[in-house]
Amino acid sequence: MQVYEAPLRDMRFVIHELFNNEKYGQDGFGKLEALEEFSPDLVDAILEEAAKVAQEVLLPLNRSGDIEGCTLENGVVRTPKGFKEAYDMFREGGWCALASDPQWGGQGLPEAVNKMTEEMICSANLSFSLYPGLTHGGTTAIEAYASDELKQFYLPRMVSGDWSGTMCLTEPHCGTDLGMLRTKAVPQDDGSYKVSGAKIFISAGEHDLTENIVHLVLARLPDAPAGVKGISLFLVPKYLPKDDGTPGPANGVSVAAIEHKMGLKASATCQLNFDDSIGWLVGRPNKGMEAMFKMMNTERVSVGIQGLGIGEAAYQSAVYYAKERLQGRSLSGVKNPSGPADPIIVHPDVRRMLMTMRAYNEGCRALGAWVSRALDAEKHATDPEVKQCAEDFIALMTPVVKALFTDLGHESANLAVQVYGGHGYIAESGVEQYARDARIAMIYEGTNGIQALDLVGRKMPAHMGRYLRSFFHPVSQFIEATKGDAQFGRMVEALEKAFGALQLSTGTIAQKGMKDPEEAAAAATDYLRLMGLVAMAYCFAKSAMIARDELGSGTEDAAFYKAKLATAQFYFDRILPQATAAFLAIKAGKGSMMALDEAAF
Amino acid sequence: MQVYEAPLRDMRFVIHELFNNEKYGQDGFGKLEALEEFSPDLVDAILEEAAKVAQEVLLPLNRSGDIEGCTLENGVVRTPKGFKEAYDMFREGGWCALASDPQWGGQGLPEAVNKMTEEMICSANLSFSLYPGLTHGGTTAIEAYASDELKQFYLPRMVSGDWSGTMCLTEPHCGTDLGMLRTKAVPQDDGSYKVSGAKIFISAGEHDLTENIVHLVLARLPDAPAGVKGISLFLVPKYLPKDDGTPGPANGVSVAAIEHKMGLKASATCQLNFDDSIGWLVGRPNKGMEAMFKMMNTERVSVGIQGLGIGEAAYQSAVYYAKERLQGRSLSGVKNPSGPADPIIVHPDVRRMLMTMRAYNEGCRALGAWVSRALDAEKHATDPEVKQCAEDFIALMTPVVKALFTDLGHESANLAVQVYGGHGYIAESGVEQYARDARIAMIYEGTNGIQALDLVGRKMPAHMGRYLRSFFHPVSQFIEATKGDAQFGRMVEALEKAFGALQLSTGTIAQKGMKDPEEAAAAATDYLRLMGLVAMAYCFAKSAMIARDELGSGTEDAAFYKAKLATAQFYFDRILPQATAAFLAIKAGKGSMMALDEAAF
Repeated sequence: MQVYEAPLRDMRFVIHELFNNEKYGQDGFGKLEALEEFSPDLVDAILEEAAKVAQEVLLPLNRSGDIEGCTLENGVVRTPKGFKEAYDMFREGGWCALASDPQWGGQGLPEAVNKMTEEMICSANLSFSLYPGLTHGGTTAIEAYASDELKQFYLPRMVSGDWSGTMCLTEPHCGTDLGMLRTKAVPQDDGSYKVSGAKIFISAGEHDLTENIVHLVLARLPDAPAGVKGISLFLVPKYLPKDDGTPGPANGVSVAAIEHKMGLKASATCQLNFDDSIGWLVGRPNKGMEAMFKMMNTERVSVGIQGLGIGEAAYQSAVYYAKERLQGRSLSGVKNPSGPADPIIVHPDVRRMLMTMRAYNEGCRALGAWVSRALDAEKHATDPEVKQCAEDFIALMTPVVKALFTDLGHESANLAVQVYGGHGYIAESGVEQYARDARIAMIYEGTNGIQALDLVGRKMPAHMGRYLRSFFHPVSQFIEATKGDAQFGRMVEALEKAFGALQLSTGTIAQKGMKDPEEAAAAATDYLRLMGLVAMAYCFAKSAMIARDELGSGTEDAAFYKAKLATAQFYFDRILPQATAAFLAIKAGKGSMMALDEAAF
Repeated sequence: MQVYEAPLRDMRFVIHELFNNEKYGQDGFGKLEALEEFSPDLVDAILEEAAKVAQEVLLPLNRSGDIEGCTLENGVVRTPKGFKEAYDMFREGGWCALASDPQWGGQGLPEAVNKMTEEMICSANLSFSLYPGLTHGGTTAIEAYASDELKQFYLPRMVSGDWSGTMCLTEPHCGTDLGMLRTKAVPQDDGSYKVSGAKIFISAGEHDLTENIVHLVLARLPDAPAGVKGISLFLVPKYLPKDDGTPGPANGVSVAAIEHKMGLKASATCQLNFDDSIGWLVGRPNKGMEAMFKMMNTERVSVGIQGLGIGEAAYQSAVYYAKERLQGRSLSGVKNPSGPADPIIVHPDVRRMLMTMRAYNEGCRALGAWVSRALDAEKHATDPEVKQCAEDFIALMTPVVKALFTDLGHESANLAVQVYGGHGYIAESGVEQYARDARIAMIYEGTNGIQALDLVGRKMPAHMGRYLRSFFHPVSQFIEATKGDAQFGRMVEALEKAFGALQLSTGTIAQKGMKDPEEAAAAATDYLRLMGLVAMAYCFAKSAMIARDELGSGTEDAAFYKAKLATAQFYFDRILPQATAAFLAIKAGKGSMMALDEAAF
């Protein structure tokens, strides 16, 4: 059964307690004056309201949306029953505009709060999350690169959620390799462009939730150089605005088909045709990739959060079943003597699965909150050094968050299916939907393999490794400061060992990769995983110490902190050992990976 | 795209070359006189014919079967279009009866050949494979436990495939814990029983492929003791046979529903009601679990082969796409200068995925062939010591084959989706079907967690660890004999290290588990994986040496042996390191896994 209650206590912990902690190191980019109006009480109140929307409005539509899916008839895409009403409620409640700038009607909330809200929405209904999610990505690019005129007109309409947005990148013959794209943009006398071409995999490309849709389309100018250096970004509305600002005539954008997918069925994935559609340039000519990456990077962190969201929903649904389902007896003595059997949560192997999911979720949530803090500091820090460090950390961690969280979210969803046993394979249980829905997040916004290449190819070497320092520095400081910790010394040693493996791997890859870029590429996926494991280990070690201190000072919330300790220990016992495997795989180099002739496959 | 060509060369390698190899150790249970009529040429000819059936008859129905699914209307279950014709062709070709005893009309083929054929069928069409597969499981139990009268009547009809079979174990409230089952069997004056109860998840429980269906049903006699000690097995035909042996009146078996599942949609998974259905006891009263396990163990190895089958199909479909799809340029220089981009198989991270799948498939195929040899030796060996050793090896490896192969098959299917990128998430590509179909194999016939418990709880300690010796002995002999190998010494060292970790873990689990069975259960899943990794490492090290020798002696098939070498090296470089992670996880013990209060989840 799909059950979900927002993990507010853990969210409060990672927002208020984990970072900028005086005792264990200043890793949260310090206090940000600009955000001081968002007091802990206000933040908590917002999270509680978001939880209600997720639980009460979106969750009930998750399975029905999967069953019904989207439909395309006579060029019109319909979302499943209830989606329009839910979207209206969502929009009217101001949930589309949480993190956006108040000058465009946004609420200017800290990203740390915004990302928690995203997590809840994704837990409740991943398909739904795409509609406001892509709009938000679009506004980021428009805000950063569009002309004032475009901003003034489009941003308020998109930030409010009255109009939605899309990212039109992929074409049938090119996804990862956008250099090959063929969509054309021909300049018109009035400064606009006529955009023509076919795009595929366009999430929310067409639907019935908003009165207009603003497409951000990658296309080539007539004189554009070949490859990625000849790509420009255009804003192309579905309906051209009338003088009064309301949607006017259709703009040559049509839906050729919607895709039949493994999951995410309530999200309309469209094949769009642009036929002399009028658009406006966003950013400079031939610099579309820059603007696209602005939008894409925002989305990549959000896609990571999708993985976490599904992971949390899957975990809770598995826990529900593991407490409910009676099967077998505990090996340490009957636990449910009045029943015909014990609940399966008593069995160690079921615990293994639940604790794994739990550790993944808590680890990702902590790391996600750290990156969210950096997003806030990037925007609001007054100290240029802090700002720079935040930017570096975001650049470094964006691919890690995207790939790690979605890999683990998919694994969690599959563990939930396994906890349910045969019942998990049946659609009625709702958990197989999580496994199907989660699968896409490892692919879109750049496959997880592409994330890993971004990490080793761009982020690792950038500015002589400067990005790495934004992460390595707080971790090594923490290790130095806590190495002798009476209770957690061994935990810190394990962190130190994994961190050492990460540093060694960094050196190896940098050295080998300089001579032979294939060596770096061959190490990429394992390196990203290793970095993610170290980052989560750091978060857990610190969390354990904070929990210990709280328990020592007689907290009223002992149950929470005790559970945090147990989960942290489980992470070190059972998850972190994967770091060794990743390290050994990296060390092996590209040899056997590239040895086979293409013909021999 | 779903493409599949049976990997006949590798099959021939593991059947003819890998085991009973004089130079590298007698691990294939020696030559079996009873099977000498099956010359290598005959075996190869059978495999080639099986490949044609799989490729030409079953593969074309795989995707259409997934789209159409099974339907239930007025109590009648229909399989998808083409399935009936394919089944008739399959049956008439004698493919239902490959491994069965000639006295019942079977062909008495070596299991090593039979399992290869199963692999091909599962690669081509997993849903289809269930129909003949369950019949075969049923005949195993009938052959071993039923009365002569039942055998004489039912076996020829089932072995020919004219009638099919099912295993009716699960009930809504009990799957793993069969002790709770409620289906009743009331003795009648004529020696028969009236069986009543509700069963769920019955694969091939009802369909339109055969004129009768023979259900093997677990039920309780009126005076049966509680729990698993009060379960008996009954043979219950869908139609009671008339005096002339043809199907007569309906026997009170009805279909309440068919399940809507994540995948395997062309296999009818039924809820069956038995209402005073006439049946006959198979085996002794209250000893149904014994007979059930006979059937189940046969099925468990076959389910492992399902995982391998899907893994191979997924691999081939991914290779097809990786050679076809042009995207980006090779980091070591343009490989396809006349095209707009290079095929993605040039990219290291794509290679990583393909090689991982390839190594999984080859490793599983080798280990599967080893177990198949044991199945043959169990039946045909004349030396009682060899027979005993074969039985021990089967007992030990059955849970490993079931859980390891299905875990890896699912991982391969997901890697194939990843190689396809966004296109892999679209139903049209066919690869997401592999991921959905593969998912069930980790669950049915005992979840993979249950397999792991079987391994540590029953198989490991049995007869003071005697089963383990059937595996440990050839491995340690091989290590001793090849340790100084000039070319592969390091490979053998890595095997030795992993084998050492396995032995150490065995000791730890045995010792801790004696005092606290939860300790053994907490280690189970990692221990099973560790044993699987060591077994595959052994097979690969030996394969590499055989390949080296063949290459040295100027084989005409150099391409095959070179590829084998590369894959073996990749396994040691990139897969075997997981053994260290498993070892560390086992070492950590149950502490943090069991620490959390149930209420804290």
